[in-house]
Amino acid sequence: MNIKEKIFLDEEEIPKEWYNIQADMPSLPEPPLNPMTKEPAKPEDFAPIFPMEIVRQEMTTERWIPIPEEVRDVYRLWRPTPLYRAKRLEERLKTPARIYYKWEGVSPPGSHKPNTAVAQAYYNMKAGVERLATETGAGQWGSALSFGAMLFGLKATVYMVGASYDQKPYRRIMMETWDGEVYRSPSKNTEYGRKVLAEDPNTSGSLGMAISEAVEDAATHDNVNYAIGSVLNHVVLHQTVVGLEAKKAFEMIDEYPDFICGNVGGGSNFSGATFPFVADKLTGKRPDLKILACEPMSCPTLTKGLYLYDYGDTAGMAPILMMYTLGHTFIPPPIHAGGLRYHGDSPLLCKLVKDGYIDAAAYHQTEVFKAAKLFAETEGHIIAPESAHEVKAVIDEALRCKEEGKEEVIFFNNSGHGHFDLGAYDVFLQGKLVDYEYPVELVKQALENLPKIE
Amino acid sequence: MNIKEKIFLDEEEIPKEWYNIQADMPSLPEPPLNPMTKEPAKPEDFAPIFPMEIVRQEMTTERWIPIPEEVRDVYRLWRPTPLYRAKRLEERLKTPARIYYKWEGVSPPGSHKPNTAVAQAYYNMKAGVERLATETGAGQWGSALSFGAMLFGLKATVYMVGASYDQKPYRRIMMETWDGEVYRSPSKNTEYGRKVLAEDPNTSGSLGMAISEAVEDAATHDNVNYAIGSVLNHVVLHQTVVGLEAKKAFEMIDEYPDFICGNVGGGSNFSGATFPFVADKLTGKRPDLKILACEPMSCPTLTKGLYLYDYGDTAGMAPILMMYTLGHTFIPPPIHAGGLRYHGDSPLLCKLVKDGYIDAAAYHQTEVFKAAKLFAETEGHIIAPESAHEVKAVIDEALRCKEEGKEEVIFFNNSGHGHFDLGAYDVFLQGKLVDYEYPVELVKQALENLPKIE
Repeated sequence: MNIKEKIFLDEEEIPKEWYNIQADMPSLPEPPLNPMTKEPAKPEDFAPIFPMEIVRQEMTTERWIPIPEEVRDVYRLWRPTPLYRAKRLEERLKTPARIYYKWEGVSPPGSHKPNTAVAQAYYNMKAGVERLATETGAGQWGSALSFGAMLFGLKATVYMVGASYDQKPYRRIMMETWDGEVYRSPSKNTEYGRKVLAEDPNTSGSLGMAISEAVEDAATHDNVNYAIGSVLNHVVLHQTVVGLEAKKAFEMIDEYPDFICGNVGGGSNFSGATFPFVADKLTGKRPDLKILACEPMSCPTLTKGLYLYDYGDTAGMAPILMMYTLGHTFIPPPIHAGGLRYHGDSPLLCKLVKDGYIDAAAYHQTEVFKAAKLFAETEGHIIAPESAHEVKAVIDEALRCKEEGKEEVIFFNNSGHGHFDLGAYDVFLQGKLVDYEYPVELVKQALENLPKIE
Repeated sequence: MNIKEKIFLDEEEIPKEWYNIQADMPSLPEPPLNPMTKEPAKPEDFAPIFPMEIVRQEMTTERWIPIPEEVRDVYRLWRPTPLYRAKRLEERLKTPARIYYKWEGVSPPGSHKPNTAVAQAYYNMKAGVERLATETGAGQWGSALSFGAMLFGLKATVYMVGASYDQKPYRRIMMETWDGEVYRSPSKNTEYGRKVLAEDPNTSGSLGMAISEAVEDAATHDNVNYAIGSVLNHVVLHQTVVGLEAKKAFEMIDEYPDFICGNVGGGSNFSGATFPFVADKLTGKRPDLKILACEPMSCPTLTKGLYLYDYGDTAGMAPILMMYTLGHTFIPPPIHAGGLRYHGDSPLLCKLVKDGYIDAAAYHQTEVFKAAKLFAETEGHIIAPESAHEVKAVIDEALRCKEEGKEEVIFFNNSGHGHFDLGAYDVFLQGKLVDYEYPVELVKQALENLPKIE
């Protein structure tokens, strides 16, 4: 009898509701603050850049939020995604552990990002918005938003971090194929961008800068809103389709994970895939579930950051969030996992780390690419460097199971393919990949720029 | 009630046998000839470059060939592939036709090519072969063979057409990630390559040249065999998993196509996807089934070529095949669908065209990319320029159905994604794509170099 390698749900089993972990958290994070008044943000503070339904979802503590039929209908283009059993990886590691992964690389943009892009585009379309502005690091989010906006008849303007814009022309062209308008950030299209360029015409940009440009574009134009790919509550909410599908698939095969992990940039991949499982830990159903957040050593927000109020963006225009942060002016070393180069993290995720429900670990990129190579050799898929962080954690856990002779069930969300990251694979294969030590001095400097809260 | 957009078979329904159309053809093509003696090729003529089981499969007329369990086990990494209903494309075209496509872009190398790469690697491994040599045009086949060889512990050496090697570094890196060794062809690694380089050091190569290099590499080394990505009977045979799965999926939803089509480079995509349906036409079960082979206007083998004996490769080392050909020395204009730039076609496919069972049509690349853009806008997936040829045919057929008010069922195999073809999309989006007229003079010249057969 062959082990089944892929578990597929029926299309009808695409979740009908998103899961909001706030309903089950013993204590909630401190509220976001208005960056001008430094008072707790009110719904109307978000109104210049978000439609009201998104603002409602950002603030609600209801457990289940219905997914509009029009959004589910777009999800059908690639969802439900398969749950894979990584049989060949297990065999190579000679581990008694059973390794499962959800494969989000089958979506047209190639990652989990469209799960929220499509939802955000839908609510903006319903609100009469004509254009969405956003930032993108590695390009996954900008691709997803261009794709989502196009499907609901909206225009998308994407501020792409300069370094990625130069290194990843294919990501730019992908966005343009889906009618996205892409600017190299910092750009001359915004006041903030012009200011940064005046100070340093050769800057390669950062995610924080690009966020500032997109927020400014949205705030200063009528019928233009902002869309964000991670960090905020509504984004995390939309991503729970991943974890909810995974839970259903595990039920079908009568398994439940002992260990789950995910890579963390702003937290949407991690949270979307794990929160439906974290719920079982919070409610006491699975008190022993081990949960690990994986991040890069050069941007170790959860493992080295401070838990306090900081701006979500570099310019200080975005809401002030209670989170682990390395300082909003911190610009991480240029690792290849561009999607993980963010100074903060989702406040919900941070609070759960702070309260001890979730552990965190940081990895160097060389060991991460080694894991990616092993994954390609066994499971075939060439995955994004972001996703490879969790593969590294999974391999470590599987080898621990081998040493201890434990038949654990391991689960992770394989968040995207690495087809546009092959330049980084090339550097790795040539033995030229550089590891960066934790940039402690840069972080210290950045932490001096925190907002002053009374 | 929602229309189901994806039909998935269970993993157990991965076919257990490949289908050999020769069992159902009213008359078979003339046999291949030994390029030296120009006599019908004997099994031993193939022995220097193929393992005996492949040779047997090349020559047999048995209807069903069992698929080894080890090969099915690798297929499980991505098979069965989904059968999609292209609902959004239908809606955009306002056609009463129902459009279905098989999506082979989910395989790790990104196309249908691993269906045969894995099988060939397996039989070579069983025969004790240590290394496989092959050519690649756009890079799809070389990726697939690197992938397949790796999974069975073989080395792979890939001669990559110079133009693609320069334009598509990501394809090269993909092969290297799967441990493939890649040479820019023509290379200094073979006598033939050195000869060509001596005559023209700046040549950008051709598929025919690269085949010659790979065949020489295999023929002149012990424990090294040759693997081919298209044209020959055994390759076409292995690809029938695509059509067999599609037929099963159609049975599940109680549909059967009225019109099927596929793009043709060497014929393996087309034949693999359609032959299980063509069988029904040959045996009289579906006499009215319309079958269209789609090719580029700049390499119009089936629509403008001559049906006669010609070499499979440029150097005249490969078997002489009875097929439609533009002449083995013909080098097509540099269109972006690199996988379709081959002077000949599968003898089985050619014979079925010759005997009137299959029609053919040729398209310019601008109209092909327009079709690809429309597909990306509606179905989301950014597809290979090769696959876009059939999408162009499908759109034409769907619009004809609209004009005539006919509810036809249309099927095509979407053979691969276009993630490494975004450079070509960029040229198209900028309005800079060039169409090439049918190079009639070049073909005339090439047809003067046909082998002399008594």
